Amino acid sequence: MSVDLSAVQAAAERIRPFVHRTPVLTSSTFDAELGAHLFFKCENLQKVGAFKARGAVNAVLSLPEAERAEGVVTHSSGNHAAALAYAARICGVRCTVVMPDTAPAIKATAVRGYGADIVWCKNAERQATADRVLAERGGTFVHPFDRDEIIAGQGTAALELLDEVGAVDVMVAPVGGGGLLGGTAIVTKSRCPEARVIGAEPEAVDDAYRSLQSGVRQPAVPTPQTIADGLLTGLGERNFAILQERDVEIITVDEPAIVAAARDVLERMKILIEPSAGTVLAVLRREPERWRGLRIGLVLSGGNTDFAWLER
Amino acid sequence: MSVDLSAVQAAAERIRPFVHRTPVLTSSTFDAELGAHLFFKCENLQKVGAFKARGAVNAVLSLPEAERAEGVVTHSSGNHAAALAYAARICGVRCTVVMPDTAPAIKATAVRGYGADIVWCKNAERQATADRVLAERGGTFVHPFDRDEIIAGQGTAALELLDEVGAVDVMVAPVGGGGLLGGTAIVTKSRCPEARVIGAEPEAVDDAYRSLQSGVRQPAVPTPQTIADGLLTGLGERNFAILQERDVEIITVDEPAIVAAARDVLERMKILIEPSAGTVLAVLRREPERWRGLRIGLVLSGGNTDFAWLER
Repeated sequence: MSVDLSAVQAAAERIRPFVHRTPVLTSSTFDAELGAHLFFKCENLQKVGAFKARGAVNAVLSLPEAERAEGVVTHSSGNHAAALAYAARICGVRCTVVMPDTAPAIKATAVRGYGADIVWCKNAERQATADRVLAERGGTFVHPFDRDEIIAGQGTAALELLDEVGAVDVMVAPVGGGGLLGGTAIVTKSRCPEARVIGAEPEAVDDAYRSLQSGVRQPAVPTPQTIADGLLTGLGERNFAILQERDVEIITVDEPAIVAAARDVLERMKILIEPSAGTVLAVLRREPERWRGLRIGLVLSGGNTDFAWLER
Repeated sequence: MSVDLSAVQAAAERIRPFVHRTPVLTSSTFDAELGAHLFFKCENLQKVGAFKARGAVNAVLSLPEAERAEGVVTHSSGNHAAALAYAARICGVRCTVVMPDTAPAIKATAVRGYGADIVWCKNAERQATADRVLAERGGTFVHPFDRDEIIAGQGTAALELLDEVGAVDVMVAPVGGGGLLGGTAIVTKSRCPEARVIGAEPEAVDDAYRSLQSGVRQPAVPTPQTIADGLLTGLGERNFAILQERDVEIITVDEPAIVAAARDVLERMKILIEPSAGTVLAVLRREPERWRGLRIGLVLSGGNTDFAWLER
């Protein structure tokens, strides 16, 4: 059975003690710029610095006791790794993360800080290495986005947003593998059937855009070059179907627009977001006339970043 | 009559439609570092980017109609200027701000953006210039901190914090003129009589520290050299009395500690604070053993800053 609103509501109940109910911020500056009413769901202020904590905690808490005892395994170079390590720690579950040797040292430090084991591999051998770890150690593989419990968990951010501000006309979330956008679309179209759900995607990794345009899921861009390092992966199979069914629209943005949006959010809203999260404001700015008078939810996906891009 | 808890509660009612109820954030990182439970009241996410909106809105809304019609005047190089301009705009009141020619251009832009007039002067002639403007144009002078309605308004931040998290053992706020610390002390000692109220002050402008140590209000440091540009002014007369009566303790911190705290808050909590606000974490770090197991409220005063200090 695919994920629906009730699965997201159940996830929200399940994860509540272990994640933040993040604030929803408004900005008179950006409202004036776009002539709209913007509601920013601040997942940059979430545990482990990103929405990924929601799905990971839901996934681990959803495992039957016997499976929990075997531990969890994933591969990730980024926020999902830290999120699953965090989720495993709060549940007292063993966690092994396969990380590509290109992963930033700071991410490895975070993963180790939550008590997870790291197995290093070459970037192209992530799945093979995870399969080997599973064969040797046992445990449950928790995919970063192509898994129902993950999608339901990520949907809880939009659920909280709508609970707090009421109905919206438009909802925007970034899209990489599509777990966040998928969960967001499920919640939004259930609660506000007339609303438009928009995925924000860097031009440089536009496989979700091409997938929805063509109606055929496109492979991930092989050597992605974007500052939005949370959005490198290709759209997952489950999420492709969810986005198709809910008539989700993808808008792409170029690199300078992403950086400008992230910087403007820092300067005007006083919060640090990672460039991946900047895409949601950037896509609105591409068609400024389109949003006049509308109520728009935006999911700021995370805040794990250094400051190198600020100096550009 | 001096300011008391009921004056702060009345201010909270009065200003509610015009200011944000800012979020209270926690940080497992800083909790672990200090072995304490920290609650950060995020006034960097307030209207005009600082707690000053609270006092200014309360002051303007508290004016009788006849006085409102005459307009308001102040002198300020920083957040109070923008806050009073904002308060005047929402009340439809004329506002004139005397600004020293050393004020940053960005502050003048903000003040003009709210529709206020600016009269420029030399830094030493701020009060004289304001007096001349008052003689010429009439209106009410709204002092940035040595005024009851301002102190009551600033106290609403601590009131919201305590309403949200319950009693604390320690409350920390920065001290410049003392409006924020005074209002914070009034609220905290009324609600939690056993709590310790601490003012965070840069070593370079330690007049509040020396005032409370000596029992005699000390003059402002004449040529203050600190990155905490919100804390340059000397402690006000009303506020000195309030701090004395409530046994407030001042802890001073040096410049590198202020910068490190502001940077760490950005990196770990994903929020941008101005260096002045970094003082509250910096003072706790000076005596790390002292806070074990305690519940500590911290008022992050504002977020109006460029990024120059980040690159230090």
